[in-house]
Amino acid sequence: MATKHLFLLAGDGIGPEAMAEVKKLISAMNDKLGSGFVTEDGLVGGCAYDAHGAAISDADMAKAMAADAVLFGAVGGPKWDAVPYEVRPEAGLLRLRKDMELFANLRPAICYPALAASSSLKQEVVEGLDILIVRELTGGVYFGEPKQIIDLGNGQKRGIDTQVYDTFEIERISGVAFELARTRKNHVTSMEKRNVMKSGVLWNEVVTQTHKARYSDVKLDHMLADAGGMQLVRWPKQFDVIVTDNLFGDMLSDIAAMLTGSIGMLPSASLGAPDVKTKKRKALYEPVHGSAPDIAGKGIANPIAMIASFAMCLRYSFGMVDEADRVEAAIAAVLDQGLRTKDILSEGMTEVGTVEMGDAIIAKF
Amino acid sequence: MATKHLFLLAGDGIGPEAMAEVKKLISAMNDKLGSGFVTEDGLVGGCAYDAHGAAISDADMAKAMAADAVLFGAVGGPKWDAVPYEVRPEAGLLRLRKDMELFANLRPAICYPALAASSSLKQEVVEGLDILIVRELTGGVYFGEPKQIIDLGNGQKRGIDTQVYDTFEIERISGVAFELARTRKNHVTSMEKRNVMKSGVLWNEVVTQTHKARYSDVKLDHMLADAGGMQLVRWPKQFDVIVTDNLFGDMLSDIAAMLTGSIGMLPSASLGAPDVKTKKRKALYEPVHGSAPDIAGKGIANPIAMIASFAMCLRYSFGMVDEADRVEAAIAAVLDQGLRTKDILSEGMTEVGTVEMGDAIIAKF
Ligand SMILES: CC(C)[C@H](C(=O)O)[C@@H](O)C(=O)O
Ligand SMILES: CC(C)[C@H](C(=O)O)[C@@H](O)C(=O)O
Repeated sequence: MATKHLFLLAGDGIGPEAMAEVKKLISAMNDKLGSGFVTEDGLVGGCAYDAHGAAISDADMAKAMAADAVLFGAVGGPKWDAVPYEVRPEAGLLRLRKDMELFANLRPAICYPALAASSSLKQEVVEGLDILIVRELTGGVYFGEPKQIIDLGNGQKRGIDTQVYDTFEIERISGVAFELARTRKNHVTSMEKRNVMKSGVLWNEVVTQTHKARYSDVKLDHMLADAGGMQLVRWPKQFDVIVTDNLFGDMLSDIAAMLTGSIGMLPSASLGAPDVKTKKRKALYEPVHGSAPDIAGKGIANPIAMIASFAMCLRYSFGMVDEADRVEAAIAAVLDQGLRTKDILSEGMTEVGTVEMGDAIIAKF
Repeated sequence: MATKHLFLLAGDGIGPEAMAEVKKLISAMNDKLGSGFVTEDGLVGGCAYDAHGAAISDADMAKAMAADAVLFGAVGGPKWDAVPYEVRPEAGLLRLRKDMELFANLRPAICYPALAASSSLKQEVVEGLDILIVRELTGGVYFGEPKQIIDLGNGQKRGIDTQVYDTFEIERISGVAFELARTRKNHVTSMEKRNVMKSGVLWNEVVTQTHKARYSDVKLDHMLADAGGMQLVRWPKQFDVIVTDNLFGDMLSDIAAMLTGSIGMLPSASLGAPDVKTKKRKALYEPVHGSAPDIAGKGIANPIAMIASFAMCLRYSFGMVDEADRVEAAIAAVLDQGLRTKDILSEGMTEVGTVEMGDAIIAKF
């Protein structure tokens, strides 16, 4: 098969441990299937700041831009709590998203049957849950200008952030949501706060128009984002695809992830627009969980979200649907077998570390 | 006792039905205890728009400003979905908050023992839950300028909202949170997105300073708002008082409310600063639930949140702590007795309508 370039940004905390398991899986696929993956490592987040004073170097940024896909671990930790805002660990991730124009963030919230009992929600509320949050990732309050702190004198400061959305941004992200809904239960719920925010008014208007013009076969609902958050907690199975802006998407996808019982399980994909000529999309895949500095280096982190992120990479960047299915089936199989990392441990199950979990998944692959 | 002026803005949907039960309670208190309440009714929301083309008239606004306290029902409904943004039903509520300078929104999320089982969360996760969300209510993205939609030509529009916080705004709301924490478990968790928002950086800084300068006896934690949302779903009992901005407070308080099993149960108080001379605060009390147009007029709405809002009014506006306790005890008693409106009905309980529920609570008072 053709050579496939993966750029690996493991980052901080448990990122490197989780990434190590993916590397083993990649080697196995190259050996067994001749998948042709070539990997290169780079630095992002706190470790990049320590190495060269920026949350990602220009050289690594160029490699990310050139790669067929980027696998991203996690960034941040107390060690870097006091570094200047511009070079804080998260700035590396935000630069990747912005410079690569990864406007579409896909966050599936799937409840693995073997884990339904470990959710804080009642089993019947989450069992079989399978929703997909499509979050806009390059706009909104994350990147809008002005974004600053002004000294007003008299001991007073003013903090300002700007939420901005243009028609084309809302159009393209809702297009992604509608397309994906067609491959699922054909139902999109759009969430905003149009009763308070002008960007919400525009969001609602553009989603409605896009639906009417090109996707009227898909069922579309609108919900206020606060009500949406409540409904996620009350009865999440009412949703199929949720499309929402950068900040609401941040909140709502984390809540949706938590419903499923373990945030340590969930992957995400961040995609750019298809290139006009090659049809290829820039892409970055990352677990929903963070760097979990408290458990880093102990060999107990759950590598499943990172491995599942690689499965999304197989599916979306390389069209390797069969292989992606097999990775996901392997994850489900080890869970059925009773293997658990500490974060998802429950009575009667077998506790394993990061490496054993990775090995077990690869063995089932 | 001295005359106490209450201005009642029942609003739309189930607002008037719920308010009717509070009126009965007020009459009973005047009759039995000589509490000296004088009430006057006004219009807000869709009904105000229908009557005079604005979501609240200047005359009613003046009455709200002059009253000792305002009781507010709920606003909005599909009937007014297409009215212009400036006069939409919510504009009435937002004007009340802004013009009365009600910067402190207190939203208790309490799980009534009798209802713990009706939460979508596991009973052990929510049983005994008692948290208080202190939401900033007159700043942030709700009111910041520019707030507009610009026509860019070429079929493109731009929607803009501005998140703005000044030092003094953060100082005063965190002061309220710390004061309230001292009357509770002495623990405040402040939530923002300082890793993405400059207003979050300032928020974090000012809360930290306020704590250090005046409230170092209170335990203070900081949490990113997305992580906070997850933790609310995972293990809400880790929180006592949560202090956060207007938009995060909107989302997080709704989620916290939903955890408790019924949004139909929960009250809120919106308070201004104490007057320098009289020490009196402007105040508005409203249920967390909305106008629920689908069940309006059927006599099945749950009046408990509205009645509990009046209890908060007794406590915070009139220092009638004993009477407030009695109202809250009466609510708990009818629930223990097995009376339920439709929204909180469960097996073996007795279904009652709005009026019967109100009567039962008054009878226990
Ligand atoms: C790390 C942080 C900047 C990021 C975000 O807010 O987008 C994270 O919370 C996420 O959801 O990917
Ligand atoms: C009605 C609406 C404007 C309001 C808000 O967003 O503040 C409501 O959701 C609330 O929480 O009180």
